[in-house]
Amino acid sequence: MGEVIHILGFAGSLRKESYNRSVLRAALTLVPQGARLDTVELDDIPPFNQDHEREPPPAVRAFKAAVKAADAILIVTPEYNYSVPGVLKNAIDWASRPYGDNAWDGKTVGVVGASVGMLGTARAQYHLRQMFVFLNMFPLNQPEVMIAHAEDKFDKEGNLKDQITTQKIRELLEALTEWTNSLQKANTVS
Amino acid sequence: MGEVIHILGFAGSLRKESYNRSVLRAALTLVPQGARLDTVELDDIPPFNQDHEREPPPAVRAFKAAVKAADAILIVTPEYNYSVPGVLKNAIDWASRPYGDNAWDGKTVGVVGASVGMLGTARAQYHLRQMFVFLNMFPLNQPEVMIAHAEDKFDKEGNLKDQITTQKIRELLEALTEWTNSLQKANTVS
Amino acid sequence: MGEVIHILGFAGSLRKESYNRSVLRAALTLVPQGARLDTVELDDIPPFNQDHEREPPPAVRAFKAAVKAADAILIVTPEYNYSVPGVLKNAIDWASRPYGDNAWDGKTVGVVGASVGMLGTARAQYHLRQMFVFLNMFPLNQPEVMIAHAEDKFDKEGNLKDQITTQKIRELLEALTEWTNSLQKANTVS
Amino acid sequence: MGEVIHILGFAGSLRKESYNRSVLRAALTLVPQGARLDTVELDDIPPFNQDHEREPPPAVRAFKAAVKAADAILIVTPEYNYSVPGVLKNAIDWASRPYGDNAWDGKTVGVVGASVGMLGTARAQYHLRQMFVFLNMFPLNQPEVMIAHAEDKFDKEGNLKDQITTQKIRELLEALTEWTNSLQKANTVS
Repeated sequence: MGEVIHILGFAGSLRKESYNRSVLRAALTLVPQGARLDTVELDDIPPFNQDHEREPPPAVRAFKAAVKAADAILIVTPEYNYSVPGVLKNAIDWASRPYGDNAWDGKTVGVVGASVGMLGTARAQYHLRQMFVFLNMFPLNQPEVMIAHAEDKFDKEGNLKDQITTQKIRELLEALTEWTNSLQKANTVS
Repeated sequence: MGEVIHILGFAGSLRKESYNRSVLRAALTLVPQGARLDTVELDDIPPFNQDHEREPPPAVRAFKAAVKAADAILIVTPEYNYSVPGVLKNAIDWASRPYGDNAWDGKTVGVVGASVGMLGTARAQYHLRQMFVFLNMFPLNQPEVMIAHAEDKFDKEGNLKDQITTQKIRELLEALTEWTNSLQKANTVS
Repeated sequence: MGEVIHILGFAGSLRKESYNRSVLRAALTLVPQGARLDTVELDDIPPFNQDHEREPPPAVRAFKAAVKAADAILIVTPEYNYSVPGVLKNAIDWASRPYGDNAWDGKTVGVVGASVGMLGTARAQYHLRQMFVFLNMFPLNQPEVMIAHAEDKFDKEGNLKDQITTQKIRELLEALTEWTNSLQKANTVS
Repeated sequence: MGEVIHILGFAGSLRKESYNRSVLRAALTLVPQGARLDTVELDDIPPFNQDHEREPPPAVRAFKAAVKAADAILIVTPEYNYSVPGVLKNAIDWASRPYGDNAWDGKTVGVVGASVGMLGTARAQYHLRQMFVFLNMFPLNQPEVMIAHAEDKFDKEGNLKDQITTQKIRELLEALTEWTNSLQKANTVS
């Protein structure tokens, strides 16, 4: 892959005014030199059915191609019921299949998430990290960006207004870029 | 609810010849006296979108009504990417919403799962257990039924042939029935 | 066991001025009618060695006897390195052994913890909950009491001063008492 | 550090005839060219007390020095009560402290474990992986070596006799050496 680190980002919520979609929008303005962030939507990805994994619908095909083309992944996750949203997990499942054609293989990854509770999606993020072991992804250890009490950190138009959070997302994107560069230099990732 | 414990079971896979669907079929023949097992399919449940949680599609409405009508839940889970399938998590998400109308609230629950690996869906099952804390469900501690090396335990028609596994599922259903009776007696569950 | 619910509480830290020891001290003043809280220290419990599990040292013997005599357990846990402190896990290990003489078996349990970070020991608490499955303990689902930013919630003498936290601990003890009563009524626990 | 990758290995059990100690002994004979494996015992490490973290006892001092001197870590973990043994966690806690002097920082790590159950310490291994995030360690994704039904895989003298397991441990050590080399080349680890 090229000299600019190509990051693919997506949010694990379909809700129009989702805080996590706002986080992803904010991230677009915080990308460091030497990196590029493209985003993709999960809206048209249907429920995974292994019977159709070899002939996936067009939205899945496009999603999987975007994942494959990226050097690094940015997952913006809500937390539903103390874990990863089904919608997000479903997209991960599609792109991991069929066996032998796991689009996530060897990608670096950073995670951020926003919730109205005090834990800021921590529980969802640790479940994601367990998935990365199997998917053979290389997550950042730090920073972990868990945006708690999200209702205080966005303005009425849904734009991120909190400065500390903004800085954290900037640091995450910098660390992800550096980590990806390092692993590429070591030929550890594709 | 009545004197017979009403268990609702479903499998977290849409694949037609899923081992986990076979497990659910087997379970139908292993229900103890004093209990009844009904099953439901997840096939028509679309991706969750919080914008529509107050006017869910008919398949979701039916699923949620079935959950509410049950005394106890039997989840038959595959493991995808070291966690719960997106399809299963998505169904859990729908039935937990909107806020204040969580269909899972106060239900007892047993979990079983089959995989071709050596861990028999253990990782998915512990992620489910973390969800139960928030959903306010009451899981059985034992037995945990993790069906490893599933390819050896079903015949060509996909029927469960392994006697030890069959006995374990029977024990799970007995324990679930007894546990549900106990908690109802204590007025702990609905 | 008697009509008063007997709760045994302990903190998983040996540090003299530990926030979690302070939480346990605070809990002593917040016990509802119908319950009694006794506390025990982990200071003299040596590292577990299975070779000596049938002839444990006196401190372990006393700890295990105290656990067995209790109706319910209150664990006050710090979080070290994103999990349960070794010191606390070690005490749990001793009291669970030898095989067939698990002192925790059938006890109800509530968990609280304090940390200086934003997650308030959440990660440690979910690891504890996974242990409860094997130990056959019956944890409360709610309330979960995670005391974040502990440095703001105790006075200079180490006494809990935060009113919301105090109220949460009171609710935890009330819920634990009620949950224990319910399960005893159902003959589910000893 | 030198051109030979220096791996430090230890087993999380104090039991004399521990299967996991046997695994560590076996590992000593399976080290690839370009690496060296030294082992250390946890026997004399007392319970962690934060009040003494700046003046740790000699056994802790020696353990911590050994960790710091290593390029890579091999953890051989039993599973107690569905998690990491207290004894092992306690050693991890000591070497991570005091704040600012975390001996694990930047080390690569591989994990193996043996148990008599069917899961082969899987649950303990995922709890370890969560710790690695905070400790800033770089775990191998694969292979995961989970030795189930350990009683069938060792001879009467406690020596590993199972060929598949032996080969897996060899692969783990090879992968750990290669991974460490790669990250050193990328200047990602010390």
